[in-house]
Order: sequence, then structure tokens, then C-alpha cells
Amino acid sequence: MNQPLQNDLLLRALQRQSVPRTPVWVMRQAGRYLPEYKEVRAQAGDFMTLCTTPELACEVTLQPLRRFDLDASIIFSDILTIPDAMGLGLYFEAGEGPKFKHPVRNSQDIDKLPQPDPASDLRYVMDAITLTRREIDGKVPLIGFSGSPWTLATYMVEGGGSKDFAKVKGMMFAEPALMHQLLNKVANAVTDYLNAQVEAGAQALMIFDTWGGTLSRERYLEFSLHYMEKIVAGLKREHEGNKIPIVLFTKNGGQWLDKMAETGCDALGVDWTTDLSQARERVNGRVALQGNLDPSVLYGSPDLIRDEVRKVLDSYGTGPGHVFNLGHGIHQFVDPDRLGVMIDAVHEFSAKAD
Amino acid sequence: MNQPLQNDLLLRALQRQSVPRTPVWVMRQAGRYLPEYKEVRAQAGDFMTLCTTPELACEVTLQPLRRFDLDASIIFSDILTIPDAMGLGLYFEAGEGPKFKHPVRNSQDIDKLPQPDPASDLRYVMDAITLTRREIDGKVPLIGFSGSPWTLATYMVEGGGSKDFAKVKGMMFAEPALMHQLLNKVANAVTDYLNAQVEAGAQALMIFDTWGGTLSRERYLEFSLHYMEKIVAGLKREHEGNKIPIVLFTKNGGQWLDKMAETGCDALGVDWTTDLSQARERVNGRVALQGNLDPSVLYGSPDLIRDEVRKVLDSYGTGPGHVFNLGHGIHQFVDPDRLGVMIDAVHEFSAKAD
Repeated sequence: MNQPLQNDLLLRALQRQSVPRTPVWVMRQAGRYLPEYKEVRAQAGDFMTLCTTPELACEVTLQPLRRFDLDASIIFSDILTIPDAMGLGLYFEAGEGPKFKHPVRNSQDIDKLPQPDPASDLRYVMDAITLTRREIDGKVPLIGFSGSPWTLATYMVEGGGSKDFAKVKGMMFAEPALMHQLLNKVANAVTDYLNAQVEAGAQALMIFDTWGGTLSRERYLEFSLHYMEKIVAGLKREHEGNKIPIVLFTKNGGQWLDKMAETGCDALGVDWTTDLSQARERVNGRVALQGNLDPSVLYGSPDLIRDEVRKVLDSYGTGPGHVFNLGHGIHQFVDPDRLGVMIDAVHEFSAKAD
Repeated sequence: MNQPLQNDLLLRALQRQSVPRTPVWVMRQAGRYLPEYKEVRAQAGDFMTLCTTPELACEVTLQPLRRFDLDASIIFSDILTIPDAMGLGLYFEAGEGPKFKHPVRNSQDIDKLPQPDPASDLRYVMDAITLTRREIDGKVPLIGFSGSPWTLATYMVEGGGSKDFAKVKGMMFAEPALMHQLLNKVANAVTDYLNAQVEAGAQALMIFDTWGGTLSRERYLEFSLHYMEKIVAGLKREHEGNKIPIVLFTKNGGQWLDKMAETGCDALGVDWTTDLSQARERVNGRVALQGNLDPSVLYGSPDLIRDEVRKVLDSYGTGPGHVFNLGHGIHQFVDPDRLGVMIDAVHEFSAKAD
């Protein structure tokens, strides 16, 4: 039996309800900038063991909550668990990004992709969520997440990271029907995966579209946003009487926030290349906004960090609907104390006088 | 004595003068997608020898003009010639991007950076321009170029390419005065370099700001655009009775086109993440626009390429001030014939009926 939630600032802000102070969490808050994370990571031996062992994933998820006054946790996992569960063979080489042993290159490859059953094929993620939810003990909400179909497809077709996305865009332009077939399969898998995360205990959901921003507006709408909208339509929006807010985040997608706000999601992530004041104009009160400090600000002095936090809060302005975050994941070489300065400044500057 | 220019479509379009058809050229049109380039590159032995040998640089600059009905040429060179001339020791490792032996990390490093004399330290570029201009024989104009101060500084501080720009942004946030000192020095060097290119024979100039789009609006204005504006103010705008148009291009800078249009430049490069119709609204008739087909479209069929060319032309709409280009450099694995399809389609679809 899970404890009642003691801090629901995140859930309320994502639903644009009034809050006494702006909630804050940080993308990749469980990660390599923390020495205690590196210890567990070393103990696990490799990254995938860390992801697939619920006790270890739970432990690293909880670590930042012990250090910082955070208003949310996000389950420690990887965005590429779904393609891995589809049999592509995810692996990591030292010093390099993720890779797949069996990339998807043609119609046959796509036809034979199985639809993963989250309860079995991705059980390690569900177990990690259930365990972490219990261990958090109601302190803050737990966020579940997935990569977007387009973003997952880029890795699946390229076989790993890419600079110019030649293969996946080659498929998109040369064989759009094939690309849609792949994206449909992935979107169905993501929908099942996120719904299973809610059943397992996730209290909010986020979809990371890391590479949608490499497309033109027309292609973004057709090949990325369309599938996120489809997922949103297929997600459980309530669980055990609680609303499950959904956040969409397209890196470098600032120019398309107007269309993203029409998908039925509750909130949009915003990176630092778009002012929150402009973002707010573009979404016109339809959704909450999450962001958007440049992670590199955390290399600056405490005074600079506090100044920049204030600017982000001022840029959002008054009224509900803001969740403070970095505009992308925290860098691995940041001093954890600097993150503490940021979090405390968010709470201090946004606290409403009685 | 140089021959009179037979095709001045580029120069006229960049100045928003009426033209009988939309001119077209392509970023990196002299490059690895051409087998004849690869031959010369192999003959040169390494990339820097190709850059620093005027006869070879001239030859590869001319190669695409022999194959395609292009309306402009751009001198073959590298954006990192200036930091190299400042003594940083540019080198290329096989399969990796550019690197510097002596990166810039502190105040002492910046203090001791010399101001290069283009006539001697970068003479190989000037000789390549003068030779190429003569060899082109008035067929089309020759464009000179440089990296932007911010973009050059990212390589100088990081010591090469970067994914998160931790070092250079660390310096920007932690020691902004130091960063400005570096950017000032680089901006002065770029101004001298571009003016020398005009003296040597360049008929238009372009500044490539590859990494300005990694900044917030506020920082972009302060640390990138400010220095491009300074350069524009210091450039010769006329040479031997001809106007020298200046193009600024910030990749992922679509949200800041309004401010870029205020710098005094003649035209802005636009990548494919921004619709030309929206770009045109943002610049409000103040400058011409250059772009913006996604280079990956060239992996598609001839029919697709023609369709996409038409969309770009339609997106710009009627009236003068459009130069067709890709939104970034052409990819190395593109079939050259597909580029030919694109170029011919631009001319065919944009030709005005008599």
C-alpha cells in the first residue's frame, strides 16, 4: 500500500492549478554528476545491468531526493528499452553512445518487429517503478517516461546515435509509407509501455522527443508530433482517482509549441533557446510549461545561478502552470552543490508571501 | 584582369533586386559527395594540404561548376583557418572532426593570441581566391566566408567539436569578461580576414554561425550576434564599384531572425526547421533569405526532390530576395545526380514567363 502524497506541487502545476511555490525537478537528476550514482554504477558493472535490476534502479532514483529539496522523482531508466525489448539488442560501448546490434533497415525488418508485452518484456521497468514508489513513501511524485516514436526510430534505423540522420531521413523521404509503418508500431508499443508504468505506480508521464527538432515543421507534424498525439489519446489519464499529467518535450521544438499544445497533453517541456515568455504566448494558456535553464549555467558561480533562476521565473511571469527544470539533462561534470543552489533559489524566489 | 560577371543573379537576389529566376548554390558544393573531389583530396594526402595549396583549393572550387548549372561558387576552405593562424595548431584525425593542439583555456592564453595578418598568415586563402576568381572567368560570382566569432571560440576553447559545449559555456557563464575579450579578438581577426578576401576577389561574403543556436536568446544576442554585427560594421561594402553583399547564417537560429535582420547585413541563411514564409514575416522585408531545403531530401527520388523544391519556392512566395540553397551542407553520401535534379528544378520552377 502506497503512502498518500505529501508534496503534490508538481501534479498541481502540471494541471495549471495554483501552487504556493514553483516546483522543481531536473532531467537526468539521477546520474553521473553524483558520486553516489557512480558508486552504484561501478558496482553494477555495466549500464544495462543498472537499468534492468530494480533494486539498483530504485536506489539511484532515490539518491537525488536525499541530497536536494526536489519536488519530483523520475524513474531511472533508458529511452531505448522499447527497441531493446523488440529484439534490436541494445548495447553500450565505452565512451560511445547507445548502439543496436540489429538495426531496422527495410520492410522485412519492420514486419518482424514484435509488439513487446510490458508486463513480461519490460517487467524490470515496472518492478523498478513499483519498488521506487513504495520506497519514496509519498514524499514526492514519481514520473514515468518514454522516448517518442520518431526519436526511438532514429536510433532503430541508424543503429545508434547520428549527426545528420542520413539513414532515417533517407527512409522518411524515400519510403514514407515504410516510415509510417515503423512509427505506428513504435507508437503502439510506447502507449502500452506508458500505460503499464501508470499501473505500476507512475504518477505523471513524460515523452522525450530528443530528435524531432531535426525535422522541418511539415515533417515534424507528420512524423513526430502526429505519433505523440496518438499516444496521448491512448493513455490512461486517471489512475486510482488521481489525474496522470502528461508532458511532451521536443528538444529544439520551440517553433512548434503552438501545435504541440493542441495534442491533448497537459504540459510542454521547453529548452533554453526559447524564452518562456514567448513560449507562453505560443501555447496561449492551453498547457503548463516545464523548463528552461541552460544546464551550462550550473558551471557558473552561485550568484550567477541565482540570477539566472530569477530570470527564468520572471520570464514565465505570474500565474500558475510553471514547473522549473533545466532545458535538457544535467551535465556529468557539474558540481552537485551548484544544483542545490539552483533548487533552493527556485523555492526561495517563487515562494508566495502569506 | 578579371572578366566581367556574366551571371549576377546571386548578387542581385541578395540585394533584393528582381531576377528572372531564383539563383541557387549549395553549402559544401565542393566536397566529398563528388568523386572528382575525392580524387584531388587523395592526391593532396590530407585535408589541410588541400586547403593550403591554392591550385588544389581552386580546382575543387571549380569542380561543381563543371557538373551543375550553379549560380555561384564558394571558395573551398575551412572555417578554422583563423584560429590556426593564431597558433592553435589545427589538425584532423581520421574519422574525427577538427582538433586544436593548443586550446584556449584562460586569460594568459587569450592575451598571447596574435592578431593574424591575412596578407601573410592567411595568404594561401587569398591566393586561392585570386586564382579561382581568374579561372572562373566571370561565369558566376565567388563567395568568401568565415566562421562567426562565437563558433570559432567554441572550437578554440573546447579544443575541437563538442556535444554540450561545457568548457566554452562554462567560460561564458563563469567569466563573461574573459569570453568577451576572446570574442573581440576573434571578431577583429574575422573582419580583417573578410576584407582581405574582398581585396583578393570575393564578390559576396558569408559568416557561418554553426553553434550560435546552442545559446539562449539573451546569450545569443550578447555573445554571438553582437560580434557578427560588429564585423558587418567593419566590412568594405563596395569593391571596384561593385556592392559586396553579406549573408549571416546561424544554424538553429530561426527564432532570432528578427534581430539578425537588424545587423546591417544583406541576407540571412535559414535552415529547414523554419518555414521561409515565417522567416519572411520575421525579417519583414529588411533582408534577403537564403535556403532552406533539408539536405536529406536529396536521398529521395527525383520526383520527391522536385516536389520539395517547389514547396520551398512556394513557401518563400512571390517577390525578389530569395536565393535557393540547402539548409545546411550537402551530405557526403548523396548521389551527385540528385543535386543536379534539385538545381534544374529550382531554375525550371522559378523561371518567369516572358
